[in-house]
Amino acid sequence: MPEQRVRQFLMSAPQTATSTEPLSFNVMEGYLPAQFAPDVTADRELYWQVIDRTTGETLPTTAWALKEAPALPMKSRAEKVGAYPEDAASAVVTIHRPEPFHVYTADFLAKQVWDSTQIYNYLTNDWADDPTRLKDRTYDVAYPETWDHVRQSLGRWLEKHPEVDVVRFTTFFYHFTLAFDDNALEKYVDWFGYSAAVSIPALEEFAAEYGYRMTPEDFVDSGHYNTPLRVPTAKFKTWIDFTARRVAAQAAELVKITHDSGREAIMFLGDNWIGTEPYGPYFPSIGLDAVVGSVGSAATCRMISDIPGVKYTEGRFLPYFFPDVFNPEGDPVGEAVTSWTQARRAIVRKPLDRIGYGGYLSLAMQFPAFIDQVEAIAREFRSIHNRSEGELPANARPVVAILNSWGKLRTWQTYMVAHALWYKQIYSYLGVIECLAGLPLDVRFISFEDVTASDGAILDEVDVLINAGARDTAFSGGREWDDTRLQTLIRAFVGSGGGFIGVGGPTARTTNEGTIFALEDVLGLDMEVSWTLSHTRHFEANEEPHFITADLVGSLDTGEDPGDIVATGADVQLLELREGSVKLAVNQYGEGRAVYLAGLPYSAQNARLLYRACLWAANAQDELDAVLITDNPEVEVAWYPSAKHAFVYNNADSTQRAGIKGLDRIFTTNPTRAAIPSDASASSVLQVELPAYGSRWLDLQDPV
Amino acid sequence: MPEQRVRQFLMSAPQTATSTEPLSFNVMEGYLPAQFAPDVTADRELYWQVIDRTTGETLPTTAWALKEAPALPMKSRAEKVGAYPEDAASAVVTIHRPEPFHVYTADFLAKQVWDSTQIYNYLTNDWADDPTRLKDRTYDVAYPETWDHVRQSLGRWLEKHPEVDVVRFTTFFYHFTLAFDDNALEKYVDWFGYSAAVSIPALEEFAAEYGYRMTPEDFVDSGHYNTPLRVPTAKFKTWIDFTARRVAAQAAELVKITHDSGREAIMFLGDNWIGTEPYGPYFPSIGLDAVVGSVGSAATCRMISDIPGVKYTEGRFLPYFFPDVFNPEGDPVGEAVTSWTQARRAIVRKPLDRIGYGGYLSLAMQFPAFIDQVEAIAREFRSIHNRSEGELPANARPVVAILNSWGKLRTWQTYMVAHALWYKQIYSYLGVIECLAGLPLDVRFISFEDVTASDGAILDEVDVLINAGARDTAFSGGREWDDTRLQTLIRAFVGSGGGFIGVGGPTARTTNEGTIFALEDVLGLDMEVSWTLSHTRHFEANEEPHFITADLVGSLDTGEDPGDIVATGADVQLLELREGSVKLAVNQYGEGRAVYLAGLPYSAQNARLLYRACLWAANAQDELDAVLITDNPEVEVAWYPSAKHAFVYNNADSTQRAGIKGLDRIFTTNPTRAAIPSDASASSVLQVELPAYGSRWLDLQDPV
Repeated sequence: MPEQRVRQFLMSAPQTATSTEPLSFNVMEGYLPAQFAPDVTADRELYWQVIDRTTGETLPTTAWALKEAPALPMKSRAEKVGAYPEDAASAVVTIHRPEPFHVYTADFLAKQVWDSTQIYNYLTNDWADDPTRLKDRTYDVAYPETWDHVRQSLGRWLEKHPEVDVVRFTTFFYHFTLAFDDNALEKYVDWFGYSAAVSIPALEEFAAEYGYRMTPEDFVDSGHYNTPLRVPTAKFKTWIDFTARRVAAQAAELVKITHDSGREAIMFLGDNWIGTEPYGPYFPSIGLDAVVGSVGSAATCRMISDIPGVKYTEGRFLPYFFPDVFNPEGDPVGEAVTSWTQARRAIVRKPLDRIGYGGYLSLAMQFPAFIDQVEAIAREFRSIHNRSEGELPANARPVVAILNSWGKLRTWQTYMVAHALWYKQIYSYLGVIECLAGLPLDVRFISFEDVTASDGAILDEVDVLINAGARDTAFSGGREWDDTRLQTLIRAFVGSGGGFIGVGGPTARTTNEGTIFALEDVLGLDMEVSWTLSHTRHFEANEEPHFITADLVGSLDTGEDPGDIVATGADVQLLELREGSVKLAVNQYGEGRAVYLAGLPYSAQNARLLYRACLWAANAQDELDAVLITDNPEVEVAWYPSAKHAFVYNNADSTQRAGIKGLDRIFTTNPTRAAIPSDASASSVLQVELPAYGSRWLDLQDPV
Repeated sequence: MPEQRVRQFLMSAPQTATSTEPLSFNVMEGYLPAQFAPDVTADRELYWQVIDRTTGETLPTTAWALKEAPALPMKSRAEKVGAYPEDAASAVVTIHRPEPFHVYTADFLAKQVWDSTQIYNYLTNDWADDPTRLKDRTYDVAYPETWDHVRQSLGRWLEKHPEVDVVRFTTFFYHFTLAFDDNALEKYVDWFGYSAAVSIPALEEFAAEYGYRMTPEDFVDSGHYNTPLRVPTAKFKTWIDFTARRVAAQAAELVKITHDSGREAIMFLGDNWIGTEPYGPYFPSIGLDAVVGSVGSAATCRMISDIPGVKYTEGRFLPYFFPDVFNPEGDPVGEAVTSWTQARRAIVRKPLDRIGYGGYLSLAMQFPAFIDQVEAIAREFRSIHNRSEGELPANARPVVAILNSWGKLRTWQTYMVAHALWYKQIYSYLGVIECLAGLPLDVRFISFEDVTASDGAILDEVDVLINAGARDTAFSGGREWDDTRLQTLIRAFVGSGGGFIGVGGPTARTTNEGTIFALEDVLGLDMEVSWTLSHTRHFEANEEPHFITADLVGSLDTGEDPGDIVATGADVQLLELREGSVKLAVNQYGEGRAVYLAGLPYSAQNARLLYRACLWAANAQDELDAVLITDNPEVEVAWYPSAKHAFVYNNADSTQRAGIKGLDRIFTTNPTRAAIPSDASASSVLQVELPAYGSRWLDLQDPV
């Protein structure tokens, strides 16, 4: 059975040869010795790859030797780890005759000898000090014996636990990529990574099915491990599809066993969720009743609540009932309120069906004010379900689609590295989906492939495309834009009246030929990478007020600098210019409109700005208040046309006054126009005042 | 003769087709109609190129038609230009059946119908209002008739002006690339550009000599026009060599005519200087007696004073005697002092032979304080020549070489776009040569080709390599680093004890495979372009004092952000970290040392920092005061070992005190050790106090 452990492809630390003398190195150098053991028995031709990174060439296996070695010692913090698993080991590669001053690496197949989530718990919660803890080991359901064991165990467990109504799978078979280092610190984390979801049987099955092989380097990707920020190769996308199909088939069997015994089956979104792909084609076939996940923001809330093919969704809110918050100095009430307020924007638009908390109940019980607060949150949550009468609030007309390499598969999952964590390089783009998660817009996620495969037909359903991300990444598209058809289809879309919003480095790829923005003509802008400094620029900011910035108070926050952006179009209007670089611009392109934003960290102001940008890009600026809107970006309003209710909520930590606009429009074509509240002004602006984070339901059939 | 005008390759404004209907556009759109006329009689197969920029394909000439048209009207400021030259014209290209939503351009050969420098004067000094002005026309010495005319005119002029001793050529044949737009504003400027140095005879001669042709696109370079920031192609470098050879041969003839008539021949460095290449292989063969140029900084001063193959060099200082400065509100004295002080750092290291000013003497005469100041400057300048007794001040041991695509050809000319002008994207690198221009170091400029062609032998003469510039530019090297041999030769150099200083994006090229820094292992750092965010970084700044920053007071200024720099090496020491990005780091690499700096705008502090970095990288930190040094970066000192004089000068605008260190070392091996001034402290630190911008000579044979 130890041979049936889950595998993971790893790359050794790069080694520079200094002579032609044999170059030996331990491939486990820098890795947590307790986490992996190199699979030295695996066929070196297929599952190992020693690469001269200076030339890019793979060395023939005759050019190097492999020797198993004992597990390396820890550099520090060995006490956090405790005794190594018994099959921990290392291995030494020796390149017989390297080229001097070339850099070499070894890609190798490693056995996961210790479960990643448990390692995290050991390191975080000092489990090594607890002698009752045993190190969890991983086994792969790709092996028939393991698979039989898993099914039988589940059956036995269900039999033994008739009191269980709902089985929560946490999760299925493969952990997201997570590796620790020899100081027992996190070394690599990719919440979407497939590197830890490999096995020899699966690799062989893939080769048999497709007629070609996934090589170690297909996973290692010169040390990038196919992070979602890399433009994915066709081969890697095929591997995802293959794995997701396999995972869905096996998960469906476990769900069936659960159902057959009369229980519900729900899945936790995280940890060993790789291959489940909740927005992929195979997920509904798993047959889960529900998904539960941790809510870290509006976007992560929508990531759960929008999952198709399940009966209900559940969000687990912050704070966890852990001593780090639930202590005399902590502020569990404050954390509960801000966490709820963040998520509320998303819940209003697409409600979770259930909300919950996690941790030690005994801890929470010691904070009665917290219990009261949660009761208030639950009341507000229920009101959204009750007052809406199951109706979703009205969206403005424009359909907005996020366009990137991943499309629907990564719905509400874009830009993220580790779940909901802040990174300097992503927050300016993550803000885009965080804003959208709470806006009255129909938001979709489409891929470049969707566009080209449908010959642009998919764009018929879309009013505004958003292409947001850093240059040369999967989210801006990078080299995907070398596809001439993609370029022309998007140009045709905008040229014939579509909207295009570019954020950061939209359509930007580093190409030696031509512009950096593939759609430089659409945006009327380009990125200056020091190659066009000789072009004397005379552009100036447009001082006139613009629809998009009409609600902006103070200065525009575009977050990190995506690089210098210069105006190239004859008619592009620059709404914000800083140190010679464009931060916000608009451009008419044929019948359509383009908007550029250097970045969009989440804030109430930026959510409003993006909403206005979407309306403007869709040439729908007259519909600004068509589904109600406030005159204060901190206060949002959701309008339920059938129920004739409006929900107004204050996202700020202070009392806010806001006027609700659009009441006259809502009732214009409606006999109940007289129902506009009597305290609405002549222009039908209804003033409300809400305490910090407060909300209020308005019944617009009768004066409030 | 109008057919013998100098040509220039231009690219039309890009045009997006919106259907398959014929697409017509005027190639002169956006250009100054008075500057160029498309050469519609030139063979379209050879001298025009219509390109589908979406696919990169050149259209067959059968796919498009060309029609001459009248010169376009100006968009604005027509009054600045006045009447167009009589042969001004435009031309319309019609693509018969374009691909919808593809972007097209036309590369075209244009006649320069008006001289670029004169256009500048018209636009700047309202010459259009002066009816006596005639528009100067350009003629190309590549045509035998023009060449005969030029030679004969020179001969006649020399005969007619026996009173002239020195003939200053301003300059020879080809202007740097300079184009104006249809608002009479500068459109394109490249002080090193060869786009305006083309003619059909030269192109044909090239084709005959090399057996292949330069195409229009070889010059247009997808609109980048081979700016020096682009990694140059081999073809373009061949064209430079061809042109420089041709220019030198013809210039030599004019110099010979001048010499034969008993006069001196000197050249102005600028304007029509293209092809003279003062640091190129053919320049000495021109036989000039001298070069004179405008001094805008220490680097531009060294650019003149280091030119080999001339008898003397001359710098023209600021301010010009023009009314913009010489008016009651102006500060000609202040400008003269700051200009002199900037240049003085360079003059001390490598003196110009003459200094001068330009403009209207009558204006200057109205400012007696200015005249006094210039007298003082001239006195100080003479003292440098006299007290040094013709000796150059001593340099520290390390030989420093700037390593880039251009090497010696662009000695002291790196990073520049327009002469001495500030650009946001270059000042952080320009600072490197500005610092070096006044430091006691032997500075060389070598190219990547020098390294590979000599199989690394050129590195034997070098102690420290500096690779400074933005990612993907000719100064960092960009794709030059794809050359495996280059990488290994530099690694071997550092690995065996050499120093490597990287600034900004050293060795950085955007490659889909591997690291962004080609020498990531040498630097122990890499650039984060969002592809390695999953690698959890635990690096921290090193709080211990370091030799390199020992003289730094206050915070380090590295200028613009070159992109996020992360630590990847196990042992790299981070001396400065800001917002998670490395600003200054050092790394031991084998026997050698690497230093990284995010940028280095010029300042006294940064000059000192770079000096220390060079010494440290060369493992020569014990030699810090070997040629004297002060303890105050604002005050520099030059040591003349033979003359036994030291020149101490204050670069700051305030009184500075400084201790001169190293006196004990200078005299240790010298019997005159007793000569250390009696006011030097026990540790032989001699204190000096200098007024703002002041200087002082110390005679170190006797107590001062």
